[in-house]
Amino acid sequence: MKITAVAPCSSANLGSGFDALAIALDAFYDRITVGESHTFRVIGDGVPNDPTMNTAGLAALSLIEDLGISRNIEIRLEKGIPKGLGLGSSGASAAGAVVALNSYFGLGLTREELVKYAMIGESAASGSPHPDNVAASISGGLTLVTHDSDLKVAKLSISHEYRFLIAIPDISIENKTRMARQMIPKSIPLNDYSRAIARTASLIAGLMQGDRDLIRIGMNDDVVESSRLPLFPYYPDVKKSALEHNAVGVAVSGAGPSILILCDELSDMESIRRSAELILSKYGISGRFVEAGISGGTYVEGTPISD
Amino acid sequence: MKITAVAPCSSANLGSGFDALAIALDAFYDRITVGESHTFRVIGDGVPNDPTMNTAGLAALSLIEDLGISRNIEIRLEKGIPKGLGLGSSGASAAGAVVALNSYFGLGLTREELVKYAMIGESAASGSPHPDNVAASISGGLTLVTHDSDLKVAKLSISHEYRFLIAIPDISIENKTRMARQMIPKSIPLNDYSRAIARTASLIAGLMQGDRDLIRIGMNDDVVESSRLPLFPYYPDVKKSALEHNAVGVAVSGAGPSILILCDELSDMESIRRSAELILSKYGISGRFVEAGISGGTYVEGTPISD
Repeated sequence: MKITAVAPCSSANLGSGFDALAIALDAFYDRITVGESHTFRVIGDGVPNDPTMNTAGLAALSLIEDLGISRNIEIRLEKGIPKGLGLGSSGASAAGAVVALNSYFGLGLTREELVKYAMIGESAASGSPHPDNVAASISGGLTLVTHDSDLKVAKLSISHEYRFLIAIPDISIENKTRMARQMIPKSIPLNDYSRAIARTASLIAGLMQGDRDLIRIGMNDDVVESSRLPLFPYYPDVKKSALEHNAVGVAVSGAGPSILILCDELSDMESIRRSAELILSKYGISGRFVEAGISGGTYVEGTPISD
Repeated sequence: MKITAVAPCSSANLGSGFDALAIALDAFYDRITVGESHTFRVIGDGVPNDPTMNTAGLAALSLIEDLGISRNIEIRLEKGIPKGLGLGSSGASAAGAVVALNSYFGLGLTREELVKYAMIGESAASGSPHPDNVAASISGGLTLVTHDSDLKVAKLSISHEYRFLIAIPDISIENKTRMARQMIPKSIPLNDYSRAIARTASLIAGLMQGDRDLIRIGMNDDVVESSRLPLFPYYPDVKKSALEHNAVGVAVSGAGPSILILCDELSDMESIRRSAELILSKYGISGRFVEAGISGGTYVEGTPISD
């Protein structure tokens, strides 16, 4: 028996929602196939020999070891999501692996359990187990992860049909996620703190009530994005221009370098795209632009998709 | 001609929403009457001779001076909201004053303009113009204030009918609001920051989606409430007990000492109340308990109430 899970890319943070919010997008998908093998292994394009160096492999191993399941598993990874661009590529592989294993072994794991194992996989990419991208990739839509005492994953309803334009600069930054994490200040001034609280509230209320002014405020961030600006110096210009062309909001996608541009029917997507292309070229960077809608969560091929 | 505005009390912060969120409650109201006079003056129980030392007076003066209106105004203040207890008493007086003046002079001010003047009034009570309580008092319901470039006041929809139990300890703290503000740390560790972001998102999503688990998480705060614990040492015990009796969430009301207990049909309000009373008495404090629902905003007597 073989089971294939298909996991969407995702964009984390959305401005003020650092490490808490992410949204699944239908731009790119990874396919992860689980089947029998004489030993545990992960195969696929660019997958390291050591399975613990790969997010799908590490997530799968953490699940297998925790639940005491047979290790005689082969995981085949077909990457559809480009890596290192802030599109939740590593998270999607981990998400796909745990969802495929859940189905293969009939484990009936909860959303939180799936996220728990998948986020351990994320350590292979960033050195720390962060759950935001895997939560969105597994659940689909807009997700919130809290970890007060227990990990909780909530799917938030969005009242309006938004479109997204993803600006994907053609640059590769060695060890980007690790570096991006180290750039964040270790403590935050009180003023920035209270402004960020208000922005996060504004973002959630705006998305849930369909209020574009609130969303626009909420997609601003002076803490995490600002500290990482050296990684994406073109970002302020792209953002300014996109807002002038009536984008609802603009944020760095995850740890960048991609930029997430949230649009509605009032946004001039074509001008936003042309202008962003011009700005990138001024920085000597070529880029591609992908339009996307909100994606459902990771699904197993051949089974009905549920919410 | 005389115009009387009636302004509700309010509870700010709701746990994680420091300086951004507040909710108007129908427990207590201030009445503010504006009429002609030979000079500007504010009269009422316990109102200082200097009108700038009173929130209603200072708010009214800031509006009058900014708009160049006649100063021949008398403001009569009838306090229904107890002072110094974290129930937005000073904010309600300021809110009532600007709403009454807006009606008296037919100014047609926007919600944001009303809040702008009323928050200046708040400086008389706390030394800094904070907008959260006045926003709730003016608009009613659950309000969010952001001040990215401009001040913006948004009213957020709440999907479920909640009841509130307000525990009001009979204690008076000299210069409480000023002191409470000074107790907050000047910088926040990154871990606390990201946890607070997730909690704020959880609070808003929970209130808007009617998800009691999310609300409960969102009403926690390790930054502002924790730093002020010396002002209300009984709070952790009251909170723990109320949650055991199935309160949805518990938070310090504004800068305390009152405690806001959010309840729904699963909450055992009678046990929550009895248990909180017992805890307060162990701290040598008597307290009263008031049940409340969500209030509409400040209204002018004799005019239809609009949303």
